Amino acid sequence: MHDSEFGRAARDSGILRLMDDLGGAINRDAGVQMLGGGNPAAIPAVEKVFRAEMEAMLADGRAFERMVGNYDSPQGNDAFIEALAELLSGALGQPLTRDNIAVTNGSQAAFGALFNMFAGRARGGKVKKILLPMTPEYIGYADLLPGVRHGFTAARPRIEELDDWRFKYRLDFERLRIGDDIGAVCISRPTNPSGNVITDDELARLRRMAREAGVPLIVDGAYGPPFPGIVFTRATPCWDENMILCLSLSKLGMPGARTGIVVARPEIIAHITESNAIFTLAPGRFGPSLAARLLANGGEKLTALCAQHITPYYRERSRRAGELLREAAHGVPLRVHASEGAIFLWLWFPGMPISGDALYRRLKRRGVLVVAGEHFFPGLKGAWRHREECIRVTFAAEAAQLERGIAAIGEEARRAYAAR
Amino acid sequence: MHDSEFGRAARDSGILRLMDDLGGAINRDAGVQMLGGGNPAAIPAVEKVFRAEMEAMLADGRAFERMVGNYDSPQGNDAFIEALAELLSGALGQPLTRDNIAVTNGSQAAFGALFNMFAGRARGGKVKKILLPMTPEYIGYADLLPGVRHGFTAARPRIEELDDWRFKYRLDFERLRIGDDIGAVCISRPTNPSGNVITDDELARLRRMAREAGVPLIVDGAYGPPFPGIVFTRATPCWDENMILCLSLSKLGMPGARTGIVVARPEIIAHITESNAIFTLAPGRFGPSLAARLLANGGEKLTALCAQHITPYYRERSRRAGELLREAAHGVPLRVHASEGAIFLWLWFPGMPISGDALYRRLKRRGVLVVAGEHFFPGLKGAWRHREECIRVTFAAEAAQLERGIAAIGEEARRAYAAR
Repeated sequence: MHDSEFGRAARDSGILRLMDDLGGAINRDAGVQMLGGGNPAAIPAVEKVFRAEMEAMLADGRAFERMVGNYDSPQGNDAFIEALAELLSGALGQPLTRDNIAVTNGSQAAFGALFNMFAGRARGGKVKKILLPMTPEYIGYADLLPGVRHGFTAARPRIEELDDWRFKYRLDFERLRIGDDIGAVCISRPTNPSGNVITDDELARLRRMAREAGVPLIVDGAYGPPFPGIVFTRATPCWDENMILCLSLSKLGMPGARTGIVVARPEIIAHITESNAIFTLAPGRFGPSLAARLLANGGEKLTALCAQHITPYYRERSRRAGELLREAAHGVPLRVHASEGAIFLWLWFPGMPISGDALYRRLKRRGVLVVAGEHFFPGLKGAWRHREECIRVTFAAEAAQLERGIAAIGEEARRAYAAR
Repeated sequence: MHDSEFGRAARDSGILRLMDDLGGAINRDAGVQMLGGGNPAAIPAVEKVFRAEMEAMLADGRAFERMVGNYDSPQGNDAFIEALAELLSGALGQPLTRDNIAVTNGSQAAFGALFNMFAGRARGGKVKKILLPMTPEYIGYADLLPGVRHGFTAARPRIEELDDWRFKYRLDFERLRIGDDIGAVCISRPTNPSGNVITDDELARLRRMAREAGVPLIVDGAYGPPFPGIVFTRATPCWDENMILCLSLSKLGMPGARTGIVVARPEIIAHITESNAIFTLAPGRFGPSLAARLLANGGEKLTALCAQHITPYYRERSRRAGELLREAAHGVPLRVHASEGAIFLWLWFPGMPISGDALYRRLKRRGVLVVAGEHFFPGLKGAWRHREECIRVTFAAEAAQLERGIAAIGEEARRAYAAR
């Protein structure tokens, strides 16, 4: 096989291992405690709404046949985009039109298109990078600039110890510089994997810095406001012409539909549309068609679903997971990141004698899947023990899985420290 | 915006214009005669089956909830892949397992992954190309090696005049060489856009050549056997370890589901899986979940659907479109490619005073969408008047659209020749 730059990039990536673990657990291994992947929870009230909308689509003349039997335009489903423009104009306080919105096959595909649009190799061979202003950051970004060496650069956060067992990462503005080798800045809010939510003030400062540097700020809102709104703290959604907000239907409960949403200025939307046409002809129509129904009347049904069911559900799961962990990890110097949003707890084992990856492998042998923390520092240079001391654990798993899985984490961690 | 190689590649591509025309026509412009895109026809018997399977999924416990609410594994839906392995083992006469099959978000995404796997820039800067052994060839390939100059190379066909108005392209083995700058060979069978089907003998010779050159042969079977089987001549499906067969659910009638299928040796399937994980996490689950139901019991339901409904439907539409064209183009020295498969007629206007692109634009102003032929010669070097003398017309359009559209083509062509 030809040893293409693309091919090389694709080998042994963290995201592949994660998705493979996840797919295997969901599809095949009934006995596994799946605390690894980013699969959203099965929330009965949410499932009920999706089923009702599907039944309504089937009852609505030829709506189902149109959905299945036609390509969408490469920008994405018209009805969905129009409804989103209305909802998001209100939620973001900006007059958005259909020219500000494109649909992709999941937001992963959007990040691929955006990163390669603003970074990578330019005419003449110069390389621009994506700056991740705070690591740990989403594992899935790391391989999205195939064939580009050092396509990412990243900054360490400050670590703030909140009490005897919680901590929080803070953007370290002292260290943060946007040099002329940077093509765009990208941050997830809430942050996958840490559950951190950068504050409104931090975000405002980041927006200013990006604008002054003349590069766009990409905000990954897969878990964030305005939907699905898996946020347990104050986080005001915002947008301006220099921002690119990426949203998704996945954490709303529809990961099988692979529907991502990009909110940006029209010239960027035109590029996403071109990228869709070239690489996939058009986005899938199932997710957008179903969601367009949820978004009728200004999106009130969706907004209620988030506020009444999705946010409270995950808030409670986060609380419960924290409680279980505290119990399971007695005697272990574990610290857990403040759970401000998203569906993960980020565990830091200061001074643990084995790496997070070794802990992942030990747990996997016991049938408990987590993700080793080291994958979540794409672009970060220099040695930093901290990144080998963390693992990510999802609290979207079923209650029984969560209990058994967290108990196993506690045991293995205790064993690891005891062997010192 | 950063002038990345990727960004440049994405601008003004033929496939973008085509998908944009198509989406616009389907979603917005009720008055347009859409003879441009590759949208399959709405065949009532087929739609009925899809609806029944959807209703069955909803009635099948939590099957719908599982489909919507879970990521698939990056290789694709297990049940779908297992069922395909059974069906394809029989149809292709080869013992295929799940390790030979991967799912993608439409076959366009599969071609992107495959082309970048076997061609593009390698370590050290050497570029390998995709050889298209016979043009005209599918428009959508052209932009799939972003940032690679001359990523495709192509050969002219021999033109065989069959009678007073039909012609057929033939692989020109005299000119065909697979040099060491070639990473893979790719051909669509049936050919989009010409409706040509390379014969079993031609295919056998091409397989031999590729094997001897040590490069894989990619066969794009989007329209072909074993499904959807839009073939009106003899075309035996085949596969071997050096072949990569790409199939799709789109022309079966499910383009909205974006489901592509790759049949290849396990190491290639592993690469497709990696590429899925990196660029889209996992393929969409709607298409595979619905189709897995159709494929139960060795795929007999699907096979019957193709043989009893899909093949005969398009065969009749092809005949009718040819008849309409012959009538509409009286006095015009039009030649039409032998319609051996796929859903297009390929019109050649020898010596036409305006280009196919000018004819496309004149027709578009009248609300009739076709595709100019010049886009279908990716990688072909040298001047060749023939490519400016052709347009592609789909016969999957509704009967009334087809009649009005073809009448307009006849009128505009006559006007073009008359102005000489």
